[in-house]
Amino acid sequence: MGSDAAMSPKITVELLRQLRQAMRNGKYLKEPIQAYIVPSGDAHQSEYIAPCDCRREFISGFNGSAGTAIITEQHAAMWTDGRYFLQASQQMDTNWTLMKMGLKETPSQEDWLISILPENSRVGVDPWIIAADQWKNMSKALASAGHALVAVQENLIDAVWEDRPMRPSTPLIALGLKYTGLSWQDKVTALRAKMAERKISWFIVTALDEIAWLFNLRGSDIEYNPVFFAYAIVGLNSIRLFVDQKRLANLVIREHLQLDSPGRPELSIQTAPYELVHTELQAICAALGPKEKVWICDKASCALTQTIPKMHRSPIPYTPLCLAKAVKNATEIEGMKMAHIKDAVALCELFAWLEKEIPKGNVTEISAADKAEEFRSQQKDFVGLSFPTISSVGPNAAIIHYRPLPETNRTLSLNEIYLIDSGAQYMDGTTDVTRTMHFGTPTDYEKECFTYVLKGQIAVCAAVFPNGTKGHLLDSFARASLWEAGLDYLHGTGHGVGCFLNVHEGPCGISYKTFADEPLESGMIVSDEPGYYEDGSFGIRLENLVLVVPANPKYNYRNRGSLTFETITLVPIQMKMINTDLLTQKERDWVNEYHKQCRAITGAELERQGRKEALDWLMRESQPI
Amino acid sequence: MGSDAAMSPKITVELLRQLRQAMRNGKYLKEPIQAYIVPSGDAHQSEYIAPCDCRREFISGFNGSAGTAIITEQHAAMWTDGRYFLQASQQMDTNWTLMKMGLKETPSQEDWLISILPENSRVGVDPWIIAADQWKNMSKALASAGHALVAVQENLIDAVWEDRPMRPSTPLIALGLKYTGLSWQDKVTALRAKMAERKISWFIVTALDEIAWLFNLRGSDIEYNPVFFAYAIVGLNSIRLFVDQKRLANLVIREHLQLDSPGRPELSIQTAPYELVHTELQAICAALGPKEKVWICDKASCALTQTIPKMHRSPIPYTPLCLAKAVKNATEIEGMKMAHIKDAVALCELFAWLEKEIPKGNVTEISAADKAEEFRSQQKDFVGLSFPTISSVGPNAAIIHYRPLPETNRTLSLNEIYLIDSGAQYMDGTTDVTRTMHFGTPTDYEKECFTYVLKGQIAVCAAVFPNGTKGHLLDSFARASLWEAGLDYLHGTGHGVGCFLNVHEGPCGISYKTFADEPLESGMIVSDEPGYYEDGSFGIRLENLVLVVPANPKYNYRNRGSLTFETITLVPIQMKMINTDLLTQKERDWVNEYHKQCRAITGAELERQGRKEALDWLMRESQPI
Repeated sequence: MGSDAAMSPKITVELLRQLRQAMRNGKYLKEPIQAYIVPSGDAHQSEYIAPCDCRREFISGFNGSAGTAIITEQHAAMWTDGRYFLQASQQMDTNWTLMKMGLKETPSQEDWLISILPENSRVGVDPWIIAADQWKNMSKALASAGHALVAVQENLIDAVWEDRPMRPSTPLIALGLKYTGLSWQDKVTALRAKMAERKISWFIVTALDEIAWLFNLRGSDIEYNPVFFAYAIVGLNSIRLFVDQKRLANLVIREHLQLDSPGRPELSIQTAPYELVHTELQAICAALGPKEKVWICDKASCALTQTIPKMHRSPIPYTPLCLAKAVKNATEIEGMKMAHIKDAVALCELFAWLEKEIPKGNVTEISAADKAEEFRSQQKDFVGLSFPTISSVGPNAAIIHYRPLPETNRTLSLNEIYLIDSGAQYMDGTTDVTRTMHFGTPTDYEKECFTYVLKGQIAVCAAVFPNGTKGHLLDSFARASLWEAGLDYLHGTGHGVGCFLNVHEGPCGISYKTFADEPLESGMIVSDEPGYYEDGSFGIRLENLVLVVPANPKYNYRNRGSLTFETITLVPIQMKMINTDLLTQKERDWVNEYHKQCRAITGAELERQGRKEALDWLMRESQPI
Repeated sequence: MGSDAAMSPKITVELLRQLRQAMRNGKYLKEPIQAYIVPSGDAHQSEYIAPCDCRREFISGFNGSAGTAIITEQHAAMWTDGRYFLQASQQMDTNWTLMKMGLKETPSQEDWLISILPENSRVGVDPWIIAADQWKNMSKALASAGHALVAVQENLIDAVWEDRPMRPSTPLIALGLKYTGLSWQDKVTALRAKMAERKISWFIVTALDEIAWLFNLRGSDIEYNPVFFAYAIVGLNSIRLFVDQKRLANLVIREHLQLDSPGRPELSIQTAPYELVHTELQAICAALGPKEKVWICDKASCALTQTIPKMHRSPIPYTPLCLAKAVKNATEIEGMKMAHIKDAVALCELFAWLEKEIPKGNVTEISAADKAEEFRSQQKDFVGLSFPTISSVGPNAAIIHYRPLPETNRTLSLNEIYLIDSGAQYMDGTTDVTRTMHFGTPTDYEKECFTYVLKGQIAVCAAVFPNGTKGHLLDSFARASLWEAGLDYLHGTGHGVGCFLNVHEGPCGISYKTFADEPLESGMIVSDEPGYYEDGSFGIRLENLVLVVPANPKYNYRNRGSLTFETITLVPIQMKMINTDLLTQKERDWVNEYHKQCRAITGAELERQGRKEALDWLMRESQPI
């Protein structure tokens, strides 16, 4: 995301001068503010954001995925985490102070503000960008020191951003039952049943992927994420969709949403411009009965959250749509499987091509990533990538969130490990797969580490566990073999994946972090991706997507039922990298069975598509061990 | 704990009449209260309590370990959990309503109070018994409905409890360096270093085991727990100990505490009566500088917590003493190991005796438990049991917190599994061990379940994991084999154990529950006790205590270092119960190595003590498999 430009700092003197002027300007504020907070993120808690929302990057030059800027009369400071210390220091000019989060000596934003602000200061923030829970914490801390956090309705970055891009309004795509398995009407009805069960009158939908899922619509407003800017408000008898009205001129979309031929009144959608969500929510709240409750995600914007009077507000850590979306139906599962077969075809093509081309010495991280995209784009219903491809050689592969840039671009060779973590959006599903390969001869140590990672991956996907188990209880299975050798990796083992939606989605995952973790359920799809990284040397990661399915063990304690995983990624694991002596018989059997599946399913598709070279590569790479 | 009497209800008509009178009595209250809350527990967050603190049992007759009574003008209600529904309903008369916690239809205490109280009611509670965090929640909920939670300084149960036992004041025992490895002066100095590091002026010690540990003193005020009623306040330059002054007449104790010959002034202890802690804390707080902070555990009593003005109060979820106590020093480790050898001798005696006696048909759960205590009491430095022995046959073994009572007492036989979970306090350490045995021929199914439990126990204690790992990350290792067969157990896998202190202590454990879980450290001792329970049929549990020790795996990722466990319980695992086909070679090796250790260490001690029959039993039961 953001600019790929080389790491020269952005000159911000003039911008900061203008911003500070705006902080005193009566046009925006009744009283001047002494500090202004610029968070990352948009009004929808999005992980990836559109260019028009890259305000923190605009004001500072720093374009990492995480960071908060605070500008006062005298200072400009940027908080970010260890992944970005170097990048931030290179992208920001001397007007900025880098606040290295996680270091003992680094003050929190609150403590820093309190230490430098004059008495009775006012600290401003755009209430549409800051999440309700963050507002609450910051507000409390400032108040305890005699300052006030104030909502500045007009965004002050926008006020000084002359050529700010427009908010995207890409064409919408309507997905039929063939892709979704469930009409939006049925989804609304199921949602209302949950609302009725909890005595909830209204639900404010703010997450873009939840809106896309609910209405069976997709857009391309945000790179890699097939979503569109919108809000929705679902009542027990009415539905309101707030979206750029131009997008609704399309007859297919009008037909899909039944805008011109509404059926039952409770399933007719009232549409309104995106910007009107606030006014409309105010009107709804004004008409609420004394005991009526409104659901809103606790990560929604402060502005929207506070529009709901406290007595009516019922904040929830994750919404019923988030959970419903995570449990894929039969059609979605079929689609996700098909997407993974096509994706496997593209990767087999890539690896066969790499095997041939690398010895010539002309393949780089960037050209390999481009080739992967080219092969994917040849597949049916391809829409785009699902995230920026991590294509990394040797030491670059040890950088977990690496993305090749011209100045870091390495050439693939016979001497170094190559790690590619990539995925695509197809109309029928979203993919995310990582393979680590060596095109020459790996060292014994590289093979040993690879094998521990593989053992961990198998341990997770072969695990049987009771219904109701949360993903974090499986995380250690992925690490046990590495731990036994004194090794580990510093990231979680898995994340939820959407169906032709965001490649990261809640509310489930497999991680040592235990927050926001709901029990795994049959139909959920998560990644299983242990790794091992040696700074400055190499990186290994193996990632498959796995579907939670019922298991049928011998017994059934207290009739709870059991679950296990079915692997839906079908790309061979490079046997050259495996030290088979380290595998148990069960693990060998797993590898052989997996490769048999790759041959049967991916092989058949390669054959059908007439991709002879890739098929040969697959057959060679899936011999029994 | 409590009465072993048969389950006839206590007649409470007159008691409740008197209590309700007290609730209106101007002698205790300026204004009448409309409800009175009687929590379990004492003023020190103790898990086990002294008879004088069994107020909830006194007023209701219900003597389970968990329960809260609320008495209003018209109602008397008891909240307890699923373990105690039957027992509570049998022990309470018809004046009481049983509130079954965990059932959907059961209201919370707050909701119930709000539903039945007249407007503007006052709800009383003894602020010395209710924890600060519980007070906060209850107070908030009542206030939101227009009622008030009020602190009633005189306990109203005590006011109507005519023959209430005295608060115990048992003789104190001073533990020398031989047992503690660290003088109380050094412990105070280490504590002050932590206080200084966090800029804390005072620390209020309220947990009885922390006070006992800090001063290297023991008592016997509470059954099974070698603690004594006291408070301590440690400042940077002074130490105050609040304890019944009669206990300090003993010259050995005076010498130990250096009461008559204080050395450096900052290490001289000022003693005061137990009851004066409140007044003294008030005086200390009155003299605090504006930025001074006072540490107190967030589970301490509301009364003591609120004595500290909010601006000076720094509540902590667990105290530095809790953590320091959990990490055993070399002397404590030596003591704990010695205690376990003696304990193993007693259990070998027991099992040899049972093998001989059971066929005669005269051994019951109670007589077996008594025999275990008899054998333990023959060991050097034996003080008492560390908890009530769980001695259970057949279906009784499926009740996880079972304790044999005359009316449930079963006879041991050749046809049913026998589970004994027992432990002792020795001057040098605390033990806690569970073995499950069959003295006839177990069924294949019993053996299969036993073997899964054993595999889980081995998986935990053989695990290697990085420094900084929390115990909950190991819990699933104990369950994996059971899960694979569709089985599970509904309790955690391990708890911390004190050294000649409480058999349950924080802040570490091994559980799927993730709260209050600090990283495991070398020197900590926890239990490793997976199980399997089949209601109405049988129960299996295997419990060893394990010491956290450094591990030396092949590699050392990021120099973090690794840990593993050393098993300190040395009692054979019954091989008759193992289906060896289900064990991996590694697991077989573990069992053989373990039994070799039992022979070498417990065997040598049996020999030294001339316990021939028990030694024969041990040798028979520890053959290689």
